Amino acid sequence: IMSELESGMAAIIQVFHKYSGHKCKLRKTELKALINNEMGNFIKVKNETLDVLFADLDQNGDLEIDFKEFITLIAMVTSACHELFIPNK
Amino acid sequence: IMSELESGMAAIIQVFHKYSGHKCKLRKTELKALINNEMGNFIKVKNETLDVLFADLDQNGDLEIDFKEFITLIAMVTSACHELFIPNK
Repeated sequence: IMSELESGMAAIIQVFHKYSGHKCKLRKTELKALINNEMGNFIKVKNETLDVLFADLDQNGDLEIDFKEFITLIAMVTSACHELFIPNK
Repeated sequence: IMSELESGMAAIIQVFHKYSGHKCKLRKTELKALINNEMGNFIKVKNETLDVLFADLDQNGDLEIDFKEFITLIAMVTSACHELFIPNK
């Protein structure tokens, strides 16, 4: 039985593969769909912002986002949400 | 309604606060409890490994792990799990 934290980590892996398919990389249109469909309550991105974000995440410059680059985005957004949702503070 | 990905990100924030309490930082004993209780299916750490891991994560050297340092651990473990659990490959 997985803990809620472990289920959360599994959800991150699953959503990446749902959008990357077997190639295990996200193209820009796939990243946009993932953000809009799965993170819409947390962030909204305009096309210009998406261009900047994608270039930032794509550290090896291959025009695709691999899992390590994707988890960087999750860490950024979760950190930003953490600042907003600190309980009882 | 949150997506599974958003619920997963919320679970990461909640588990951090469950162990950090209001100080919003994890001491080494708290990190150890969190890893053993909440990530036991994914990683096991011995005391020696915990010392090295803690020093690695504690980038500002204050002997406590803040949320940004914690999310680095989550990213490391999730990436490692990702390599193991690539579907149909």
